[in-house]
Amino acid sequence: MATEIERKFLVNGDFKVEVEASQRITQGYLCSIPERTVRVRTKGDKGFITIKGIGGASGASRYEWEKEIPVGEVNELLALCEPGVIDKTRYLVKSGKHTFEVDEFYGDNDGLIVAEVELSSEDEQFEKPEWLGEEVTGEVRYYNSMLMKAPFNTWSE
Amino acid sequence: MATEIERKFLVNGDFKVEVEASQRITQGYLCSIPERTVRVRTKGDKGFITIKGIGGASGASRYEWEKEIPVGEVNELLALCEPGVIDKTRYLVKSGKHTFEVDEFYGDNDGLIVAEVELSSEDEQFEKPEWLGEEVTGEVRYYNSMLMKAPFNTWSE
Repeated sequence: MATEIERKFLVNGDFKVEVEASQRITQGYLCSIPERTVRVRTKGDKGFITIKGIGGASGASRYEWEKEIPVGEVNELLALCEPGVIDKTRYLVKSGKHTFEVDEFYGDNDGLIVAEVELSSEDEQFEKPEWLGEEVTGEVRYYNSMLMKAPFNTWSE
Repeated sequence: MATEIERKFLVNGDFKVEVEASQRITQGYLCSIPERTVRVRTKGDKGFITIKGIGGASGASRYEWEKEIPVGEVNELLALCEPGVIDKTRYLVKSGKHTFEVDEFYGDNDGLIVAEVELSSEDEQFEKPEWLGEEVTGEVRYYNSMLMKAPFNTWSE
C-alpha cells in the first residue's frame, strides 16, 4: 500500500482563472466511525463506493477498497446515509510540477474552500500559488467526515 | 419492491438425507445498526457486498442493494468487519412445492440449526418436514446480526 502525504490549506484569493478541470462531488457515509468508513460518492457522471479501514499510527497509510457503481445506485444509497451529505466542486489547479485539488463546498459548508497537494515526502518543496492561505493539515474539523457532522456554518469563529 | 414473508423454525432431526444443494457461507458486518447494514459474504466460490435499509413497520419490506465482488476482496473486507463473523453451511431442502433453506452454524454458534421457508402470503400452507421443530419467526436472537453479537454458545437456556 502506498503512503500518501497530503498537505491541506485554506484558499484566500481567486484560483478559478487557473483551473484545468472540475467535477461536482456529492458524497455521504453509510458508516463513519474511526475503525471503518463506508462512503458513496458521485464524481461528475461516475459513481463509487469506497470502504476504508483504520489509519496507522501516523494516519498516513489506510486500507482502501473502491468500486465504480452506477450514479443511480449512489443516489439510492445516499438516501440511506447518515445525516449530512457533502456537496462540493473539486477543481484541479496546476502549480509548478504539482496539481492542487481545490474543494469548494456548498450547502451547510458554503463559504469553505480548501486546497490539497499530494507530496512524495514530508519535506518535498512545492510552488505556493498566490491564492494559498493558512495551512490546516491534520486539523480534524476540516475532514469531510467531520464537515458532515459539524458543518462550516456552525463554526463559531 | 417485493414483500418477503419468511417463517423460521428450529430443526429437530436428520434433514441431510433430503439435501439438494449446499453452500458454505461466511459473512461479516461493516455496519449493523437498525437504520442500515453493510454486509460482506462469501457464498461458495462467490463474493457479495449487500447494503440494506431500515425495515418498514411490519419489518417485511426493506431496501436492498447487492453487488458481486471477488472472494479475495470479501476476505480483505472481513478483516475490517465488526467482531463476530458468521460461518455456516446453507442447505436447500425441498418440501412439497416449497424449498427450505437450512443453516447449520459453526464456531460460536455451533449446535444451532435453523430452517426458513419463503411464503407468498402469511396464511400460505406448506408441507412440514418431519425434522421441523419449534417456530422462532421474529425472534430477534436468531437474526444473523444478533448471532454475531450474542452467539448461541452464550445463551443460558
